[in-house]
Amino acid sequence: MDHNSEIPSFRNVLAAAERISDSAHRTPVITSSYFDQKTGGRIYFKCENLQKVGAFKFRGACNAIFSLSDEEAQKGVATHSSGNHGQAVAYAAKLRGIQAHVVMPEYAPKLKVNAVKGYGANVVRCENSMESRQSVLEEVLNKTGATFIHPYDDARVIAGQGTAALEFLDEVPDLDFILTPVGGGGLLSGTAIVAKNHPQTVRVIGTEPETVNDAYRSFKAGEHIIDGNGETVADGLRATLGKLNFRIIHRDVNDIVTVTEEAIISSMRTFWERTKLIIEPSCAVPIAALLENKIDVAGKKAGIIITGGNLDLDKLPWQV
Amino acid sequence: MDHNSEIPSFRNVLAAAERISDSAHRTPVITSSYFDQKTGGRIYFKCENLQKVGAFKFRGACNAIFSLSDEEAQKGVATHSSGNHGQAVAYAAKLRGIQAHVVMPEYAPKLKVNAVKGYGANVVRCENSMESRQSVLEEVLNKTGATFIHPYDDARVIAGQGTAALEFLDEVPDLDFILTPVGGGGLLSGTAIVAKNHPQTVRVIGTEPETVNDAYRSFKAGEHIIDGNGETVADGLRATLGKLNFRIIHRDVNDIVTVTEEAIISSMRTFWERTKLIIEPSCAVPIAALLENKIDVAGKKAGIIITGGNLDLDKLPWQV
Repeated sequence: MDHNSEIPSFRNVLAAAERISDSAHRTPVITSSYFDQKTGGRIYFKCENLQKVGAFKFRGACNAIFSLSDEEAQKGVATHSSGNHGQAVAYAAKLRGIQAHVVMPEYAPKLKVNAVKGYGANVVRCENSMESRQSVLEEVLNKTGATFIHPYDDARVIAGQGTAALEFLDEVPDLDFILTPVGGGGLLSGTAIVAKNHPQTVRVIGTEPETVNDAYRSFKAGEHIIDGNGETVADGLRATLGKLNFRIIHRDVNDIVTVTEEAIISSMRTFWERTKLIIEPSCAVPIAALLENKIDVAGKKAGIIITGGNLDLDKLPWQV
Repeated sequence: MDHNSEIPSFRNVLAAAERISDSAHRTPVITSSYFDQKTGGRIYFKCENLQKVGAFKFRGACNAIFSLSDEEAQKGVATHSSGNHGQAVAYAAKLRGIQAHVVMPEYAPKLKVNAVKGYGANVVRCENSMESRQSVLEEVLNKTGATFIHPYDDARVIAGQGTAALEFLDEVPDLDFILTPVGGGGLLSGTAIVAKNHPQTVRVIGTEPETVNDAYRSFKAGEHIIDGNGETVADGLRATLGKLNFRIIHRDVNDIVTVTEEAIISSMRTFWERTKLIIEPSCAVPIAALLENKIDVAGKKAGIIITGGNLDLDKLPWQV
């Protein structure tokens, strides 16, 4: 199987779940009456902020790294990441006992850079552009022979991310909706594969910041558009939509909606206040979609995958 | 039974647990390997930040208000509080369908004042001094005939707070230590009553900010000292030790230790980062006591009651 061009199957997600089962947490699902009252539905949150390394990204990285042959593994792994994927690769490599190299842009939060280093990975800094990330990564790959673990445009990573939805639907089988944020599309595409193979009907909704809406535009146009992204407080969603991810999203996702920066920030704060759980700004995108009535879930059950809880606590998004 | 002069018994705590069982959450107990590694012990956290109104205070207020006769109840209840007790009384009164009056000082965080109002209580502002609290409260009591629900110096409140330790020891029966913060002493005294009636030996340790150490000084001197308190970031612990509380603490508590403001702030931040759970500064006092080696728990099981998760998110303690 070519991990860069072949779409993973539901069977690959089941295999991923088996492969990572001893290493990843089965994270809790919580409810909070405030969100039910505000939406008229019953809202469930799958808490991947309580996952290893504080983010769902551990699932995909762990599946990819545990899938490597011993020959591949001994040369190590490398990736580029503004944060959570870097931590995920660093920690999964540590579990396998191999070296990880993580290329991180200047804007990556200090907390995430320190965490990656803390897991024993080699951090290589680059500039904030995608071009710089890729050229610095190429150097690392050429020098080390390491295997590149793409943050999202990789069948093994997508299958790994799908395991969150697998657990979610195992715990709440009659969800009418699953909402996830979409950046590169790893989580949304993995979730969609699982939802379309669920015995009951589940509508899968991607949610994206208005200012970084390449997935929304691609979905609506039916073709992969990657230009024209701006800035967002949801730093985990700045990546552009992947190729494999677009193909799956185009095929299996029901809709993508966008939300404003203001809605993201206020929804994040509301979630902190109501649940006492720390979530990073990206997580607040699907919450904002519900609180701003972008999707009508009245009388329905809606599940949101809370993607991570890593952020710089020195300055919160509502503190200007 | 005179609630202002008689010490509650273990039997009163059991009755409280029954009385509040339909209204209060049985909160989860969590662990986090970071704290085990740092202390060499096994550390358990009882998450009362996930309790109704976001704090253990709901237990005591609910027990007191649900204990009132119908004649007493119809005149309403009143209290003074810098925060969580006010919310607790307001919400418990709402559940019973009676009016609550809450006297709140100027320094009370906006979030807490708004929450009290949100539960339908009548908020009466006063100055920051204890004298002002009491004189304003007297006015309210005289005008309304409401029953005063003291934040901690009340047998019904103490019995209610004890129910947290009851659940904690039910879930982890072989705890060697239970640590709580001490302000007025409601939680610590209720916890001590429960621990001393547990079949296995549990050492009960109070933890207090160095700058507000009246409980520490009272405990060491063996007499009730209430003067000489300073300022602390742990705003929930500014209250002076209660009379009933002192008698119980003097009788049943094993030790009280103090921690610095710096240790409180850094421990709070570490807990946020490691567990993704929001705790208010008061909760960090017992955590700081462990991380600063004020108590040796190596090879032992230690339980910390996490008291609440309500704080003003506009300015965090580490943001100067």
